[in-house]
Amino acid sequence: MIKHLRSAADLDAATATLILDTAAEMAALAGREVKKLPALRGRTVVNLFYEDSTRTRISFEAAAKRLSADVINFSAKGSSVSKGESLKDTALTLQAMGADAVVIRHSASGAPHRLAEWVDGSVVNAGDGTHEHPTQALLDAYTMRSRLGRLEGLRVAIVGDVLHSRVARSNVLLLSTLGAQVTLVGPPTLIPVDLPEKLQVSYDLDSVLPDSDVVMMLRVQTERMQDSYFPSAREYSRRYGLDVPRLTKLPEHAIVMHPGPMNRGMEIAPEVADSPRSTIVEQVANGVSVRMAVLYLLLGGK
Amino acid sequence: MIKHLRSAADLDAATATLILDTAAEMAALAGREVKKLPALRGRTVVNLFYEDSTRTRISFEAAAKRLSADVINFSAKGSSVSKGESLKDTALTLQAMGADAVVIRHSASGAPHRLAEWVDGSVVNAGDGTHEHPTQALLDAYTMRSRLGRLEGLRVAIVGDVLHSRVARSNVLLLSTLGAQVTLVGPPTLIPVDLPEKLQVSYDLDSVLPDSDVVMMLRVQTERMQDSYFPSAREYSRRYGLDVPRLTKLPEHAIVMHPGPMNRGMEIAPEVADSPRSTIVEQVANGVSVRMAVLYLLLGGK
Amino acid sequence: MIKHLRSAADLDAATATLILDTAAEMAALAGREVKKLPALRGRTVVNLFYEDSTRTRISFEAAAKRLSADVINFSAKGSSVSKGESLKDTALTLQAMGADAVVIRHSASGAPHRLAEWVDGSVVNAGDGTHEHPTQALLDAYTMRSRLGRLEGLRVAIVGDVLHSRVARSNVLLLSTLGAQVTLVGPPTLIPVDLPEKLQVSYDLDSVLPDSDVVMMLRVQTERMQDSYFPSAREYSRRYGLDVPRLTKLPEHAIVMHPGPMNRGMEIAPEVADSPRSTIVEQVANGVSVRMAVLYLLLGGK
Repeated sequence: MIKHLRSAADLDAATATLILDTAAEMAALAGREVKKLPALRGRTVVNLFYEDSTRTRISFEAAAKRLSADVINFSAKGSSVSKGESLKDTALTLQAMGADAVVIRHSASGAPHRLAEWVDGSVVNAGDGTHEHPTQALLDAYTMRSRLGRLEGLRVAIVGDVLHSRVARSNVLLLSTLGAQVTLVGPPTLIPVDLPEKLQVSYDLDSVLPDSDVVMMLRVQTERMQDSYFPSAREYSRRYGLDVPRLTKLPEHAIVMHPGPMNRGMEIAPEVADSPRSTIVEQVANGVSVRMAVLYLLLGGK
Repeated sequence: MIKHLRSAADLDAATATLILDTAAEMAALAGREVKKLPALRGRTVVNLFYEDSTRTRISFEAAAKRLSADVINFSAKGSSVSKGESLKDTALTLQAMGADAVVIRHSASGAPHRLAEWVDGSVVNAGDGTHEHPTQALLDAYTMRSRLGRLEGLRVAIVGDVLHSRVARSNVLLLSTLGAQVTLVGPPTLIPVDLPEKLQVSYDLDSVLPDSDVVMMLRVQTERMQDSYFPSAREYSRRYGLDVPRLTKLPEHAIVMHPGPMNRGMEIAPEVADSPRSTIVEQVANGVSVRMAVLYLLLGGK
Repeated sequence: MIKHLRSAADLDAATATLILDTAAEMAALAGREVKKLPALRGRTVVNLFYEDSTRTRISFEAAAKRLSADVINFSAKGSSVSKGESLKDTALTLQAMGADAVVIRHSASGAPHRLAEWVDGSVVNAGDGTHEHPTQALLDAYTMRSRLGRLEGLRVAIVGDVLHSRVARSNVLLLSTLGAQVTLVGPPTLIPVDLPEKLQVSYDLDSVLPDSDVVMMLRVQTERMQDSYFPSAREYSRRYGLDVPRLTKLPEHAIVMHPGPMNRGMEIAPEVADSPRSTIVEQVANGVSVRMAVLYLLLGGK
């Protein structure tokens, strides 16, 4: 088993599949009302959050507590510890306190990699800048597999501001590893250049929908909409928003995903978000199972 | 047993009495140094606080932990999640994470009712706007019964800004259900109109005191004192503050209550707050027992 | 055993030694992977922090959780409860809730002493204004004893803004109790007057280093550097900063300590902070063991 989960690139196909299978076992236990497992009793999981993200934090917190770990929340948002040097001092502190795992959310891309150099425990990336968010990719893959039965050969459209999305980056890496076929969809200014050959790119959402098994809508970060390369809200929504007419262009079995929180009416219409084809609520539930699996496997629980 | 505690109106006399009796058992166990009960092991209680209220939050947190539940604190104050739409998304998140109970404090009256439509778990109202605060009413009733031996026929004066007080509203509902006789006392601008017939109203505190078994002083919310309908601080304190001379007008057995935090010197004199007839500290202790009983019964602990 | 740890002056030599010995047992258990002890199961430890100090808070939190206590974090920074009157009300609340121990950090010197008058549980001072920080002194003593084998007769230089340092004050008290010889080093404006006779004072760091077994660098609080009695940053660093040339003046066995967080390049050079003679990371680890010992002994765990 790997020690850290810093990037979706840390995962080969066998390891990723083991995590998904373990998450399925966790979900099955929860379904049989086995809500508390002794696996990580006596272990300490630190949630080190330099950015606010209550949803991700409580998902990890719930996962760790269901495994009987002790959880310490360390919210460092806006404090002086967000500077590079201090991350090292904080890491040494957590190291000295015997943290078995550190779940880190940081605005700087690569922070989890640096942290892993300084602590003995496992490091889990809970989102670093515009870089990666590997447990999100795992829960997305879990959701696809659970709804559609497989990942191999699945046609997945990832739609929106791909350039700045850590969710997109981690999904591209993991889905490629697991054999899915990804198409990136968005305005030219929001699609990265120099992409791997296997990836397809389209600037036209309507043409991609009929050939997609999964359409994953990315959150528009409204603060980026000030930037000159960003389309206007109206233009963005008109060309790349998923509304009811577009939903009908999807194959009947296709599902709609969103990492949350949604801008209802911007990248996704409320009727689409609440439709039975939307997996948005499932994704959240699956997040706890997947994070349980990740903590369990990284910490060698048995 | 009821599923949610959104309002004191959710409680009929039998249910309310069951909660008070169960709270008495919880207190008895704590008195025998049985501080940790296994009843809710494996259950998750989320404290969803959109308003700051450390005292209420830690009372619920202590109650849940004594019952061995896992507690997740979700402080959403000032964040964008305080908007209506986001409450739904947050609810779906908590729902998906398998929260067994959500304790909610929110500035909007009715938020707990909306939340209960979106989650499968139990919802406990920990204060919603100027609307209700039912566990406060329960702990107040518990304190009265414990000090005076009964609730039926008890004469309770509730004094102050009744109009904006969720504590008053919940107490009026619960005390009426349990057979006490409530008199609302305050300046005419701070007493609601269209009251049920059973309620008595007075604008003259001094005339009410000799006939009261309980006098419950409400907290003056100093931010409301800017409003034109509010008396000046000096005037308010002179007419409706409970000072030592007024204390002597109460029957010998009568008790003085306050939900806290107090404005000492405004609605209550320090000597009164600290007198043996004051139950203010007991109310806090009883709060933990009552909240243990509520969580235990709502979650079907055994 | 004492009931409270408000000041290092609460500790006689026997009690302090018992704490250090117990901490050594805690560390030995952790070293044998016994990370969770049942000693304080069912007890509640409240972290009452009126000032931000994540490192100290999580150190106490980790210590209490390893002893199986329930931990409730109460962050009161910036809230209205920081006023004197409210401290009493908060104390009564914690008292009523049955807190077995309250760990308090407060900007006002003496707050833990006042708190101890109002609660039945144990009070542990986690830093009060410029007054004291006794668990820091204990972990420092533990670190010295663990590295150098003894405390009796040890020559300890405490360097920097001694006047405003609660770390210095607690260390002076405890080290004197345990038989070490302390020399205070700093600019004349930052050394208190009216010191006990046993203490030595020097304004010249270079002359003290060759005769020191321990050099403890204090953190420069940058907000104090605005004050007229404070040397300029450049001057301070040049005269009282511990750089590599100065490190070579120490005896070969001597150690370098710092309570953290460091201003690297100001009071301590990065190469010194990261040298093998620095105990800075050990101090943090020892902090958890020492705080476990303090909570265990104060709460009569067995």
